[in-house]
Amino acid sequence: MNFLEEKILQDGVIKEGNILKVDSFLNHQIDIDIMRQMAYEFKRRFRGIEVNKVLTIEASGIAIATLLGNLYDVPVVFAKKSETANSTDDKYVAKAYSFTHKKMNNVFVSKPYLNATDKVLIVDDFLADGEAAHALIDLIHQAGATVAGIGIAIEKGQQKGGATLRGEGYRVESIAIVESMDWQTQTIKFREQKALPIQNPNLHI
Amino acid sequence: MNFLEEKILQDGVIKEGNILKVDSFLNHQIDIDIMRQMAYEFKRRFRGIEVNKVLTIEASGIAIATLLGNLYDVPVVFAKKSETANSTDDKYVAKAYSFTHKKMNNVFVSKPYLNATDKVLIVDDFLADGEAAHALIDLIHQAGATVAGIGIAIEKGQQKGGATLRGEGYRVESIAIVESMDWQTQTIKFREQKALPIQNPNLHI
Repeated sequence: MNFLEEKILQDGVIKEGNILKVDSFLNHQIDIDIMRQMAYEFKRRFRGIEVNKVLTIEASGIAIATLLGNLYDVPVVFAKKSETANSTDDKYVAKAYSFTHKKMNNVFVSKPYLNATDKVLIVDDFLADGEAAHALIDLIHQAGATVAGIGIAIEKGQQKGGATLRGEGYRVESIAIVESMDWQTQTIKFREQKALPIQNPNLHI
Repeated sequence: MNFLEEKILQDGVIKEGNILKVDSFLNHQIDIDIMRQMAYEFKRRFRGIEVNKVLTIEASGIAIATLLGNLYDVPVVFAKKSETANSTDDKYVAKAYSFTHKKMNNVFVSKPYLNATDKVLIVDDFLADGEAAHALIDLIHQAGATVAGIGIAIEKGQQKGGATLRGEGYRVESIAIVESMDWQTQTIKFREQKALPIQNPNLHI
């Protein structure tokens, strides 16, 4: 059991309707220790992969994206969900349904902030049906840029997002994958994750 | 001229209607180097002041709040602007008018994440009329907690927020204070800021 699975068991709350509430440490109050550890864990899992930009979507992905950008020392971009008065820039626009807010959102990035040479690591706090991730991929492709990988804090393994994205050939690394949960008994089961292959040619095990 | 003033002169764009567009490095794309430097600068300016929580408001304050929480090694809380399906917690609620989105917002923090013992450093990317800052102060006071200080990246010196908050006795530290700007000539003037008093009893200058 890794640090995030342990934290979810300790402080997460399961609610009716397949909802895992983690706002005491992930998306309202931020446990900075857990966030830092996530950034290091993503960097470890994506080792050997070139990343020159981190992309997330406002608002709750911004904290982990910032610490990851800090670790890689690359710019962070957060896709926006609403127009602001002071932006008349040309934008890449994609659509994503938000289950949290139960509505279709326009998601956009101003064109200057995604370029054809970018190798973009997508990060977000949750992956469920993959709506947000697919919108971000769409924005990256519109810019002619490359998806370096997708880093997720908590994947809901019973929903289709993870399987779809992996089926499309994307490298998805989720620190915790919830296989099943039951709000009545407050129990939760995580998918076991295989260790990454060790790339030491001298080591035979 | 400090690092942020220099960056504003280099990459900021002044637009009609007293708008300073800094989304290439502050609130859409994030220049991680500038962000880190801001976190160190806030820590320097608030030296000697006890801080055990950092509070901001979604979305664009989250990046700097996260790096500051990382530096202080304390939890970060971001006040939310919209209800989500998965929160039925009791909340502290305040109202703030958003000039960016031209509407009144409810701003809230779930009660467990602000406590009477908290010494809270507020941070945000902009200070103009002080609507967001006053809403955050209101939330802190509802919790019986203490405002340790207010750290702002860019203060619009001609708007009332800074003067009001300082008049109310809050310690406001803004890394750049725009005294005036002119979109037609693309010129900008910063308020000169006095150095902090040196607290070395052996040093006489």
